[in-house]
Amino acid sequence: MADDKKLTSRAENFSDWYNELVLRAELADYSPVKGSMVIRPNGYGIWERMQRALDDMFKATGHENAYFPLFIPQSFLSKEAQHVEGFAPETAVVTHGGGKELEEPLVVRPTSETIIYHMFAKWTQSYRDLPILINQWANVVRWEMRTRLFLRTLEFLWQEGHTAHATHDEAEAETRQMLGVYRRFMEEWIAMPVVTGQKTESEKFAGALRTYSCEALMQDNKALQAGTSHNLGQNFAKAFDLTFQDEQGGQSYAWNTSWGVSTRMIGGLVMTHSDDNGLVCPPRLAPTEVVIIPIWKSDDERARVVEAAHRAKAELAAWTGRGATDRLRVRVDDRDGIKPGAKYYEWEMRGVPLRLEIGPKDLEKGSVFSARRDTRAKAPLAMAGLPEAVAGLLETVQRDLFEAARARREANSHRGVTSYDRFKEIIDGPGGFVYAGWNGDPAVEARVKEETKATIRCIPDPEFRSAEAPTRCLVTGEPAQHEVVWAKAY
Amino acid sequence: MADDKKLTSRAENFSDWYNELVLRAELADYSPVKGSMVIRPNGYGIWERMQRALDDMFKATGHENAYFPLFIPQSFLSKEAQHVEGFAPETAVVTHGGGKELEEPLVVRPTSETIIYHMFAKWTQSYRDLPILINQWANVVRWEMRTRLFLRTLEFLWQEGHTAHATHDEAEAETRQMLGVYRRFMEEWIAMPVVTGQKTESEKFAGALRTYSCEALMQDNKALQAGTSHNLGQNFAKAFDLTFQDEQGGQSYAWNTSWGVSTRMIGGLVMTHSDDNGLVCPPRLAPTEVVIIPIWKSDDERARVVEAAHRAKAELAAWTGRGATDRLRVRVDDRDGIKPGAKYYEWEMRGVPLRLEIGPKDLEKGSVFSARRDTRAKAPLAMAGLPEAVAGLLETVQRDLFEAARARREANSHRGVTSYDRFKEIIDGPGGFVYAGWNGDPAVEARVKEETKATIRCIPDPEFRSAEAPTRCLVTGEPAQHEVVWAKAY
Repeated sequence: MADDKKLTSRAENFSDWYNELVLRAELADYSPVKGSMVIRPNGYGIWERMQRALDDMFKATGHENAYFPLFIPQSFLSKEAQHVEGFAPETAVVTHGGGKELEEPLVVRPTSETIIYHMFAKWTQSYRDLPILINQWANVVRWEMRTRLFLRTLEFLWQEGHTAHATHDEAEAETRQMLGVYRRFMEEWIAMPVVTGQKTESEKFAGALRTYSCEALMQDNKALQAGTSHNLGQNFAKAFDLTFQDEQGGQSYAWNTSWGVSTRMIGGLVMTHSDDNGLVCPPRLAPTEVVIIPIWKSDDERARVVEAAHRAKAELAAWTGRGATDRLRVRVDDRDGIKPGAKYYEWEMRGVPLRLEIGPKDLEKGSVFSARRDTRAKAPLAMAGLPEAVAGLLETVQRDLFEAARARREANSHRGVTSYDRFKEIIDGPGGFVYAGWNGDPAVEARVKEETKATIRCIPDPEFRSAEAPTRCLVTGEPAQHEVVWAKAY
Repeated sequence: MADDKKLTSRAENFSDWYNELVLRAELADYSPVKGSMVIRPNGYGIWERMQRALDDMFKATGHENAYFPLFIPQSFLSKEAQHVEGFAPETAVVTHGGGKELEEPLVVRPTSETIIYHMFAKWTQSYRDLPILINQWANVVRWEMRTRLFLRTLEFLWQEGHTAHATHDEAEAETRQMLGVYRRFMEEWIAMPVVTGQKTESEKFAGALRTYSCEALMQDNKALQAGTSHNLGQNFAKAFDLTFQDEQGGQSYAWNTSWGVSTRMIGGLVMTHSDDNGLVCPPRLAPTEVVIIPIWKSDDERARVVEAAHRAKAELAAWTGRGATDRLRVRVDDRDGIKPGAKYYEWEMRGVPLRLEIGPKDLEKGSVFSARRDTRAKAPLAMAGLPEAVAGLLETVQRDLFEAARARREANSHRGVTSYDRFKEIIDGPGGFVYAGWNGDPAVEARVKEETKATIRCIPDPEFRSAEAPTRCLVTGEPAQHEVVWAKAY
């Protein structure tokens, strides 16, 4: 962490800025296996907090965790035609085990629909066994050629929810419910506003009936698909003979859903909030919310301010005003031989939301000096009532981060675009979300992607649609079937 | 769960009993990949509680979580000579990725020493960077031919701690500390007493300087190695060039430790406590601690007892007498069309520690009827003060399970055995732990294993040693170098 070279700025080269930040903030590191990453404690701490929050939300909606095998027989992948087409090209294949060549190669799971619905079929006899509401936290592997730390890696960590229902409507309600859970998590925890909506036929999950997604806009005005929820219809049930005796005594195929979010969200967090000084992390996900830095010149001063810093830490950590399970996460940096400025720099790089400085003068005044990581605003805080003040400030930071991100997204959302030339100007220029009419033709979608590299991120849910619905297709001028959101994407 | 056939009894066939129980209690299921298992919600819930408890203990001792890649270059495994000899024969090998043959095959991690110490080497410059105290929760793969649910599977879930230190003594202290953490967890949470001690040279981890283990005794008097902690010396540091500038300015190799426990512990839990009616789960690890079963004959009764059951559940779940973060885990089984007896049977099979029955007569008396899963003892409990009574009873169950397991282990620990014939009688007969003198010769160890299938489980720590130390080797009559614990083992 002693490296004090400045990061490449976002304006200079956004991509270099991102890579440098992830390494310098010690969120992750490259590994000796090309395309695989190491998630370091500072990054994994964010993931742990993400996991805890999501897991609580999954359980509150009736889901239980389970674990299914890493290896999937290659033949399983082929049972659902679209699924194999989508995933087979990017699988890692185990051909040898225990020193022998295997009779049937095993695929390292790129996603677990096939093996999970095979098991569901074994466990389901009648409608009384439904719904099955299961989630798995796991690693998956997709053979990617062009990888980026957190955003696209050969192996990543995620959760995959898998459910089985007696009816289409129940499966659809589950699919939408989990999309809502994702949206709430992204907005309330990552402070990252998202547009929710439906994927087009060409962008949906391989094997799904319908895919819904959460789409966020990064600071470089490229979109990030941050989570997806799929109504799988009866496609996998038919492929894996997942049937049940219905209430009338007949045999029916079950309806499945699957939904997932991954460590990719950490990349979204970084690109939504961070600045040229390093990581900016929303307090609710920060492994450390507050760092206290005692400042001294003499040994005598040192003794007093270090003692005061630890006392303040103890007081903050003991406070239960946010509930007994949600203590303030505080550390003291009292290292010798490192100047306060170097410490500020380091903790800013690592994204700690709030810094408190305690010097001899502060002690005399019965106060500490606070510095927000996000706005870099500085203000004294009285020692009396410090926990309440700190908790309040952290809440403000969390809210302000979301509001700033939403304002930025709104400023970079272009509505009412009716000319393809204007569209290209925006996409080739500043970028952002472009709302426009589309005639529903996959050929038009493919042509725009070919010509501009922009893709339809989603057919937005009603609340995100423009007040005045576009009537014409942006490209062909034909009647519009949908308003859609276009952007270049990660 | 509707299957009401009795389990094979432990006396009849312990191994069949175990397999049937794991399936019928829905802890796990066989998967379509030979040797891999599916961990079902009832089993995964136990694992989640194990993870949470251990993770808290790891963090309390200064460790942070991180995540390293699943795939390891094949060449890495070969860098430490003993390590490759131990693990290479049981690896799964990825030879193809993204449709192409790989230049260098990738091994699916059987354990992560190699890739982790490669990364530690990258992160370590000076003594100021030490110690590094990291833990990883992960899946690992070891190609096993003879698998058993939870006990020995092709893939399993575990945690692996990895640390780097400046000195041998610090590494040794860490190794012993983590063995102590494991012992405490096994005794206080799994209610499973263990003997701790050092592994012999032939039983130590491939690449370690010294291995320590926790050894438990199952109900069939076979030993289960439930956790290990390794002082790796400088073996991996030398193989991966993990050096640091010491305080004197010279270059030194770091000292490493690694330590792990896995889903195997769930097998240990089952075989320590369960009976012919199914799982017996210690309350602290039970996903559900209390099941409330309302009992009715008429519709009118049904309305009243179901309402009372849910009220009791709400009262129990709201109670904070164990601390706000440790609420009572309670469910109500108010399903129609299933007789109370069938419900009792089912929840006994699934190992819920305490059953509360509420019938119309209980309501009149202002009480509920309780039944312990472990002893099957039954007693009325007053509705007034129910949470305290239930929590007290659960604590008693937890303590009694440990005491019963300890008494059983003591009754099956044979000390002062000095004749090899007597030793064989015990090992071939009732089994159990046999404490005896050993001359320290690996050839003797190998011969006994060959002749009796018993192995030296450990050289026990002082507190487990016999009051009178054996003076002669059990087999050769030569002077004993150590007292050791022998047993057949899983």
